[in-house]
Amino acid sequence: MTNDILITHCTVVNQNSGQLEKNRYVSIKEGIISACGPMAKCPETYPGTLFDADNKLLMPGLVNSHNHCAMTLFRGLADDLALTAWLHDHIFPAEARHVDPDMVYWCSKLAAAEMILSGTTAVADGYFFSDRSASALRDAGMRAVIAHGIVDFAAPSVPDPHKNIEAVKAFIDRWLGASDRIKPAVFAHAPYTCSPATLERAKQLADDHGVRFFIHLAESRTEPSMILDPQDTSPVRHLAKLGLLDHNCVCVHCVWLDDQDLEILAASGAHVVTCPQSNLKLSSGIARIQDMLDHSISFAIGTDSCASNNSLDMFREMDMLAKIQKSATANATAMPASAVLEKATSGGATVIGLDSCGSLAPGARADIILINTNVLRLTPMYNQDLLVYGASGSDVDSVIVDGRIIMRHREILFFDLEEVYHEVRARADQIYLPYLSRTLRNSEPGLTEGG
Amino acid sequence: MTNDILITHCTVVNQNSGQLEKNRYVSIKEGIISACGPMAKCPETYPGTLFDADNKLLMPGLVNSHNHCAMTLFRGLADDLALTAWLHDHIFPAEARHVDPDMVYWCSKLAAAEMILSGTTAVADGYFFSDRSASALRDAGMRAVIAHGIVDFAAPSVPDPHKNIEAVKAFIDRWLGASDRIKPAVFAHAPYTCSPATLERAKQLADDHGVRFFIHLAESRTEPSMILDPQDTSPVRHLAKLGLLDHNCVCVHCVWLDDQDLEILAASGAHVVTCPQSNLKLSSGIARIQDMLDHSISFAIGTDSCASNNSLDMFREMDMLAKIQKSATANATAMPASAVLEKATSGGATVIGLDSCGSLAPGARADIILINTNVLRLTPMYNQDLLVYGASGSDVDSVIVDGRIIMRHREILFFDLEEVYHEVRARADQIYLPYLSRTLRNSEPGLTEGG
Repeated sequence: MTNDILITHCTVVNQNSGQLEKNRYVSIKEGIISACGPMAKCPETYPGTLFDADNKLLMPGLVNSHNHCAMTLFRGLADDLALTAWLHDHIFPAEARHVDPDMVYWCSKLAAAEMILSGTTAVADGYFFSDRSASALRDAGMRAVIAHGIVDFAAPSVPDPHKNIEAVKAFIDRWLGASDRIKPAVFAHAPYTCSPATLERAKQLADDHGVRFFIHLAESRTEPSMILDPQDTSPVRHLAKLGLLDHNCVCVHCVWLDDQDLEILAASGAHVVTCPQSNLKLSSGIARIQDMLDHSISFAIGTDSCASNNSLDMFREMDMLAKIQKSATANATAMPASAVLEKATSGGATVIGLDSCGSLAPGARADIILINTNVLRLTPMYNQDLLVYGASGSDVDSVIVDGRIIMRHREILFFDLEEVYHEVRARADQIYLPYLSRTLRNSEPGLTEGG
Repeated sequence: MTNDILITHCTVVNQNSGQLEKNRYVSIKEGIISACGPMAKCPETYPGTLFDADNKLLMPGLVNSHNHCAMTLFRGLADDLALTAWLHDHIFPAEARHVDPDMVYWCSKLAAAEMILSGTTAVADGYFFSDRSASALRDAGMRAVIAHGIVDFAAPSVPDPHKNIEAVKAFIDRWLGASDRIKPAVFAHAPYTCSPATLERAKQLADDHGVRFFIHLAESRTEPSMILDPQDTSPVRHLAKLGLLDHNCVCVHCVWLDDQDLEILAASGAHVVTCPQSNLKLSSGIARIQDMLDHSISFAIGTDSCASNNSLDMFREMDMLAKIQKSATANATAMPASAVLEKATSGGATVIGLDSCGSLAPGARADIILINTNVLRLTPMYNQDLLVYGASGSDVDSVIVDGRIIMRHREILFFDLEEVYHEVRARADQIYLPYLSRTLRNSEPGLTEGG
């Protein structure tokens, strides 16, 4: 089966002006965009699927550059808590009790469905039991970079931390080249959970296999004091001293950077992923993303897990990034919508290591979404900015990945959504009672925590 | 026709624990909530409409406490601009050219549709040609407080500023008591567009008629230098010196308050409306809302006009308020979801002067929304917090105002939505060309602005 589609009567954004151009066509040949032009020049016949867009807006699919997909199970389990309490009193105990291979598969698949229905075509995931998340995202029809977690203590799927690098190497060997849409990668959790030796080995593993190295970095103000065997006083300089910062390194969060850190990142070619909603909700802080734009640092946008967000809708994330940067810089012209859109598409693809993705240029992989602009919140629509400041993931009508329609008119085509709901809810029901008791305990002393 | 409804099989939030209680019923008698309880105690027969909620979550409708409804026409017309440039170079010229009575009617009706479909049952509007916005919101089936604008210069619908108080008095006389759902009010634009004498007369007019007095206050850092005939150095103290701050006064924005201002507001009984998204997008700043909560200052939440937001979805606004306050206070436990929900419902109703609205208590007016929680972004749903951190206006299934179903299963029942689209788009098409030219002029010097 070839992935050939001719999409007619779509609206596209003029990349120079940001204005909308109606009545265009886009043709896809073997999963690659082959042409894009006015309907007047549209081929009269086409050997493949015909798709009349009925004036919907066609744009590159969104790239969610940081997620822990399986954590949908913990969505809204613990809100309004500081990072440490959230992590140690709620998320870590819940993970210890409830994470297993099947949980990772089904809860990642729910994340995939949520992302597809809100216009995300590619995601960078970082978790454990990564064979299962990779399978889930593959089965869902998405494009994904699956980064297997590494920490220096016993973790789900890697009980012996001495085997953490070995386990990830085996994962990479299984998946590298196994699927056009799934790329393995390495996810060293953080400099406060991985020693310098572990970080160096993890980065070497990534470089040796030509896969991305991801790491949580400078998320909280207190991180410098938590770093294992610190080589310097700042998390960025710690990595720099270890020689890890280069174009194959993706630093997630980077909330607490000083001017020198920005210079180092810019010179290194390393990438950044910002997760504005998660950073706000956990009161981690506001990253200096406009400064990164000014320094030409390559950056992308991620939702983080929906346990700290609590949504995987990249439209919300784009809106938040643009608004919060205007506020943080006291400059309403900062972080314009056009820049945000670029970082959420082609910029994101570059950061997470996907070649030729995130654009409509001929030769790009056909990861495309169609947006129904015939909705109230997009009326009127004068230009592309409203994609950032007005659109919702709910407005996404159809999604194409690798030239295959995986969601059409809001119907998921590649898997049974009801089965996913059933599997996730069955697990949520098990998690519910003890946490309910924990919550009620504060107000009703008679209740004790369930087991 | 009596407004009697029996809603069965709904889920409600336990107000003490925040947990969800399934299988409840709510009965409505003559537009008033008469009972709420478990299905086991549900009346077997009921003289009125039967509505099976099919496990949807039932909650009070949201109160959007600040909007300029008609400005939907200017949604996304001018983004990524500082307040002054946005207002003087784009919004004011567009208003001078395009605001007329019919524009106010149709564009307010589009706002009403957008609000209804995203779960807002009551709104406080402030604009000109207020008879027309009042008619639009009445015809749409919403509950609304319509505050007629007052400025000391020629304005749409009030060309002679010497007649601004007189015009508003006539508006109040026409609408007070004319509709159960529409209440008139006074909207003195700001202390930099209204002299002390005008402010005093406007407040007196409101008090004399028992209607609310609204004013934009302390929105931007530079406002103190712009105040006409300042009585003090802070906008709050300016109003205090004029004797305007009391329980009938609603101050919108209040971004730039010092500690003394907070004390004055708390002691006065005056209300605040915060519009977090508009404040961020125009880089006005972040209001000290957690401090207001700590001072027990009565406050509510508004979207502001969708020209500076650009959405009227109160779910987005709630999420933004909770997250931005956690960040601004560096405390993730600040502004918890439960407080946000209260301020977006009963708290909002109190602020804008609606009696017995915003709750499910027997005796409250039946302004109710039903939320479809059978969606991915609300799965799993452990408690009410996800209404703030996960829900979207798109999840609202049905809306009841004053005991009448005005939207059922996402279908607007009280008016023809296609007609609204048609009327607004016809006006947007007229506005489009000159502004398109203005935008292009920067990059294509050959083009001149259209007229």
